[in-house]
Amino acid sequence: MITDRSQVTALIQSAKITKGIKWSEIAEVVGQSKEWSTAACLGQMAMTKEQAEGVGALLGLTDEAVAWLQIAPYKGSLPTEVPTDPLIYRWYELVNVYGTTLKELIHEEFGDGIMSAIDFSMDLQREEDPKGDRVHVVMSGKFLPYKMY
Amino acid sequence: MITDRSQVTALIQSAKITKGIKWSEIAEVVGQSKEWSTAACLGQMAMTKEQAEGVGALLGLTDEAVAWLQIAPYKGSLPTEVPTDPLIYRWYELVNVYGTTLKELIHEEFGDGIMSAIDFSMDLQREEDPKGDRVHVVMSGKFLPYKMY
Amino acid sequence: MITDRSQVTALIQSAKITKGIKWSEIAEVVGQSKEWSTAACLGQMAMTKEQAEGVGALLGLTDEAVAWLQIAPYKGSLPTEVPTDPLIYRWYELVNVYGTTLKELIHEEFGDGIMSAIDFSMDLQREEDPKGDRVHVVMSGKFLPYKMY
Amino acid sequence: MITDRSQVTALIQSAKITKGIKWSEIAEVVGQSKEWSTAACLGQMAMTKEQAEGVGALLGLTDEAVAWLQIAPYKGSLPTEVPTDPLIYRWYELVNVYGTTLKELIHEEFGDGIMSAIDFSMDLQREEDPKGDRVHVVMSGKFLPYKMY
Amino acid sequence: MITDRSQVTALIQSAKITKGIKWSEIAEVVGQSKEWSTAACLGQMAMTKEQAEGVGALLGLTDEAVAWLQIAPYKGSLPTEVPTDPLIYRWYELVNVYGTTLKELIHEEFGDGIMSAIDFSMDLQREEDPKGDRVHVVMSGKFLPYKMY
Amino acid sequence: MITDRSQVTALIQSAKITKGIKWSEIAEVVGQSKEWSTAACLGQMAMTKEQAEGVGALLGLTDEAVAWLQIAPYKGSLPTEVPTDPLIYRWYELVNVYGTTLKELIHEEFGDGIMSAIDFSMDLQREEDPKGDRVHVVMSGKFLPYKMY
Amino acid sequence: MITDRSQVTALIQSAKITKGIKWSEIAEVVGQSKEWSTAACLGQMAMTKEQAEGVGALLGLTDEAVAWLQIAPYKGSLPTEVPTDPLIYRWYELVNVYGTTLKELIHEEFGDGIMSAIDFSMDLQREEDPKGDRVHVVMSGKFLPYKMY
Amino acid sequence: MITDRSQVTALIQSAKITKGIKWSEIAEVVGQSKEWSTAACLGQMAMTKEQAEGVGALLGLTDEAVAWLQIAPYKGSLPTEVPTDPLIYRWYELVNVYGTTLKELIHEEFGDGIMSAIDFSMDLQREEDPKGDRVHVVMSGKFLPYKMY
Amino acid sequence: MITDRSQVTALIQSAKITKGIKWSEIAEVVGQSKEWSTAACLGQMAMTKEQAEGVGALLGLTDEAVAWLQIAPYKGSLPTEVPTDPLIYRWYELVNVYGTTLKELIHEEFGDGIMSAIDFSMDLQREEDPKGDRVHVVMSGKFLPYKMY
Amino acid sequence: MITDRSQVTALIQSAKITKGIKWSEIAEVVGQSKEWSTAACLGQMAMTKEQAEGVGALLGLTDEAVAWLQIAPYKGSLPTEVPTDPLIYRWYELVNVYGTTLKELIHEEFGDGIMSAIDFSMDLQREEDPKGDRVHVVMSGKFLPYKMY
Repeated sequence: MITDRSQVTALIQSAKITKGIKWSEIAEVVGQSKEWSTAACLGQMAMTKEQAEGVGALLGLTDEAVAWLQIAPYKGSLPTEVPTDPLIYRWYELVNVYGTTLKELIHEEFGDGIMSAIDFSMDLQREEDPKGDRVHVVMSGKFLPYKMY
Repeated sequence: MITDRSQVTALIQSAKITKGIKWSEIAEVVGQSKEWSTAACLGQMAMTKEQAEGVGALLGLTDEAVAWLQIAPYKGSLPTEVPTDPLIYRWYELVNVYGTTLKELIHEEFGDGIMSAIDFSMDLQREEDPKGDRVHVVMSGKFLPYKMY
Repeated sequence: MITDRSQVTALIQSAKITKGIKWSEIAEVVGQSKEWSTAACLGQMAMTKEQAEGVGALLGLTDEAVAWLQIAPYKGSLPTEVPTDPLIYRWYELVNVYGTTLKELIHEEFGDGIMSAIDFSMDLQREEDPKGDRVHVVMSGKFLPYKMY
Repeated sequence: MITDRSQVTALIQSAKITKGIKWSEIAEVVGQSKEWSTAACLGQMAMTKEQAEGVGALLGLTDEAVAWLQIAPYKGSLPTEVPTDPLIYRWYELVNVYGTTLKELIHEEFGDGIMSAIDFSMDLQREEDPKGDRVHVVMSGKFLPYKMY
Repeated sequence: MITDRSQVTALIQSAKITKGIKWSEIAEVVGQSKEWSTAACLGQMAMTKEQAEGVGALLGLTDEAVAWLQIAPYKGSLPTEVPTDPLIYRWYELVNVYGTTLKELIHEEFGDGIMSAIDFSMDLQREEDPKGDRVHVVMSGKFLPYKMY
Repeated sequence: MITDRSQVTALIQSAKITKGIKWSEIAEVVGQSKEWSTAACLGQMAMTKEQAEGVGALLGLTDEAVAWLQIAPYKGSLPTEVPTDPLIYRWYELVNVYGTTLKELIHEEFGDGIMSAIDFSMDLQREEDPKGDRVHVVMSGKFLPYKMY
Repeated sequence: MITDRSQVTALIQSAKITKGIKWSEIAEVVGQSKEWSTAACLGQMAMTKEQAEGVGALLGLTDEAVAWLQIAPYKGSLPTEVPTDPLIYRWYELVNVYGTTLKELIHEEFGDGIMSAIDFSMDLQREEDPKGDRVHVVMSGKFLPYKMY
Repeated sequence: MITDRSQVTALIQSAKITKGIKWSEIAEVVGQSKEWSTAACLGQMAMTKEQAEGVGALLGLTDEAVAWLQIAPYKGSLPTEVPTDPLIYRWYELVNVYGTTLKELIHEEFGDGIMSAIDFSMDLQREEDPKGDRVHVVMSGKFLPYKMY
Repeated sequence: MITDRSQVTALIQSAKITKGIKWSEIAEVVGQSKEWSTAACLGQMAMTKEQAEGVGALLGLTDEAVAWLQIAPYKGSLPTEVPTDPLIYRWYELVNVYGTTLKELIHEEFGDGIMSAIDFSMDLQREEDPKGDRVHVVMSGKFLPYKMY
Repeated sequence: MITDRSQVTALIQSAKITKGIKWSEIAEVVGQSKEWSTAACLGQMAMTKEQAEGVGALLGLTDEAVAWLQIAPYKGSLPTEVPTDPLIYRWYELVNVYGTTLKELIHEEFGDGIMSAIDFSMDLQREEDPKGDRVHVVMSGKFLPYKMY
């Protein structure tokens, strides 16, 4: 019996590694970007019935696991407030080093408000570079102004 | 007497607000992007002598403050591990929600390693959109593979 | 010299107590609800030039303080992650006890997404009750669905 | 053998997802609001014998689980002090941003004391809006003045 | 200028030590128990105008300090989540060791709910004992049942 | 095999709920107050052989569990530094709000030292009150003066 | 004006370093062991009037500082839960590594209870050793059995 | 299969309680002091082959457990930074209250450096006393001066 | 079924201890340094197919475990932010004591930037010394200057 | 008046930056390595009278500051448990990623014990490399075996 979404994430990770399937192949089945599809598999997004059944078929999940994939999960993918994994830590470091900079520049351009993390999309690509290839990430989030009332 | 770089940051913030100067105007004096220049003013980057003197002249800083701007600062711009400010929190949330996704996709494309937060640049623009303008951010960081030895 | 918005909050608190002014009187000068106006005075919202000058005149603030009131502040009004003040703690307790309930019911009604804390308004009133008056709070936040991409 | 109330919560979540039952259906069986009933199922309230047996029959729980539902549980539904789930975090953010505002306004209206989180009720509804539907929440808590002695 | 209630607490502590005044003498001026009066002086309760003026006269406080004493303070008298002072720690230890016991026994007697910390009084006395005098504390808090709705 | 005292606590909780036994009934078997007996069952006190065997017989525990009941346990009954359960939190709040008051009054009466949490007893009773019954708790702890040497 | 005992500790440290006085010299004036006297100077014990005046005369403290020395201080001499200073950390490490050992051996010898940290004394001496001198510490604390009631 | 040293500690605790063996009896088999032997059994020291086999025979451990006893363990015997168990907490309190005193007195006697927690021994004895027996602990650690280079 | 890389680490530790294999023997099979090979076995590096199969054959791991060894793991080998193990703590202490020194000296020699922990190698050797052998560690990390843009 | 060693560190930093002096120049005056000398200036080591007077003369410190430099300081140079500065964080990351590796390899070579952080030296050099210069660090710490007793 599955009692927690993180168990489904573990099942997906295990099946993916044993079967040697790539995230981009899963994304094709899901029919969305590799970024959204991976996040959904890792317990951060809720799938539609069709998406969940597609992933279930590809990875050999039970009906119960497929049902859990359609539920909005308790989000947050990191085990500690400050991530210990070096790849993920670099992103935390960017928020720490550039956080006040992002705040100042967005406020200068848009006024008081935030950049949405919900009405948001992300695209990650390899950027070829003779001095060493780069990770090129584009993020786009709707600006939401604070409401006065 | 200045005994801590954060005092210089406070002086800059205070002068900028009182004089009504914009970060983009400061960036022109610095001669670098608005992202790097703002981060440098907020105590996250070290300026060259010319850059520091330019900022000092624009904002009316003392020679002592200008000397501090040229020293590599103790970085980290947030007062708590989890930021409380909603704008900056959304970025922390993105790292929390998408952290394992970024990890999986970068490893799938590049193998084990990290995206550098040092050999890194960022560009933030307004993206016009009839459903509400968006914050459009491009990040580019060199991929650094783990060395085997 | 003011180097931090929290200094302006302290000035406002001090002037308000010494002069015996009420938040509802300040709200009239601001021209917005008592909820938004109080939050703005306590360093959580940015005022327009007119609002800031009105508050400055009422409380006898300097031009420098009035300039700071127009800047989007670093938000977060609590000194610790878990508030120690009993009145504020009860709200934290409600989030702790009812957090998963709110999540389940909003997802059941709207699907995956969040209730905005930015496009948000709040109204607090006394609700007379023979068994003891009650605090009656209405909150309204726009539902933002997670974008698929 | 059940040794912890959180196991009952997991059983309920699992049965609800597998059977495709809604919280509002459970609330009908419980005979209370959907807010109270959901909180009770998620381990935050104690049910009466009748309520517990009704829920047990609907979801197919064992007698042991039904017995646990009638015990006042160790409350607190969040795994971390600061919630990582974006929907729940927005509520924590409201407490953080508006906490001192709520404190000031309640004290101004009622004097020193608190709004009860025990003699408390909550109602959550969809508020239709052409610019995007809203989550409309009404909270009502008895004001409790500090006793002088 | 006073910008924080903790400054008033420090002024009271300093005046009390320099003048050699006892808490019981202050309580007489306040006209309430020594427990409530001490808590009020230490920034945990709001005084009436008469009480504040009495304390102000006794200790030689300024009008500004007397005004602050009448404001409901941001409560919480300990600098850390777990107190380091051995006397106060013993109380934290009692909550830690006996917390679940108090919970079980109150629920067994009263059902689900809490013992109020607001509608609450406390009396502390010396209990003479040939084997060594004891601290005898009586606490009385109203039981508040969870409301079903 | 039992490898941790908390497993015995879980066994006791489970048996007590399934059999519908009250703490006061257990206390009769133990032959001590309901406060001490409950704390002992919840893993905070060590029982004598007779007490442990009595509890074991009443609740149907194995010999191994009965042996563990006689061992001084690793004490501390709360899962987090700040308790999340509202009933227990109110006690933590009392320590937080009244901690410095208790310290001042005990020192004023007894000098430097502590109130023992070991040579300590507690009695919890229902106090009938027309405005709502109250929880009445008497605590008595030996005063221990700091030794000079 | 002194508003906090830690200010007195700072005054003592500063005077001691500037005047080149040793703790053992201070202890002679206090008339107690060097361990108790140092702890008292560092804000962990309350002095008698005579002791405080003696220290005040030796170090040139004001009457106000001498008054503070006679007040039971808010104890706890470390700035963080886990000390960063290597000398003090080794003691924390001993508690961490040997904590359960001390617990087991004291319980085996005495039964359930504690070793008092209040009715306690300590003596620290140099122990000459050809392989390198050693720090020799003797601690003696009264055993306090848990009271059954 | 044993995958963690803490499992061996649990096996030892369980066997010791079930068989009613004392730490001093185990120490005799180990051939070292009761302090070192207990710490080794509780996962803080590595045993020799002979010591491990002796303990294994006495307590009926498997060969696998005996192999684990000979591996240097990941040390640290407490589940939280600040111990909750009252007996162990008193030791943490001593470090907190006397930490700066120990630092000052060791530096006064020996100069800058530390008392080793590795080249260290401890002896715990009952000290009979008509006013109540005492726990008498002698600690001896080599002084290690900071190296200049 | 393996659902987490830490399970593979536990399998490796268990097999290594039971079979009595050394890290240097594993390193020979891996064909890299003992430092890199040990880190890879402990879940901090990703192996090639050949390396993973070699380790699998030596230690008798399943195909599933061998598949997991080739996946970039979620890194971070310590259970707490501040390590409790004395050997590892000394390294944390070095970072704490010498951290600002390393920062100053690297900036003085190289300017603003970091020493890479990815393009990094380490060599640990026994350094014989008549006063007691020493641990001799050489670390080499590429200097990465902050990019201006 | 100086009441804390960190004030001396701030004075040194300020004088060094204003006068444009290098750490290597300070080290020459101290007569020790640049690593030890920098650590001593940053409040991590105690200087001899001659060293302190030399630094005082070079940087223009007062006699009081020179006296403080000769006192063993409360060590620990980082403001948070996990450092936020990227250069220092990389060292923390090395401890986190390689901590268990260092432990395994030192134990394999030396048995149970630690590498001393007191009888320790460090040398940091630029290592020229056509692919980008490297930071080359040699650390040497005496191995201290755990004493059996």
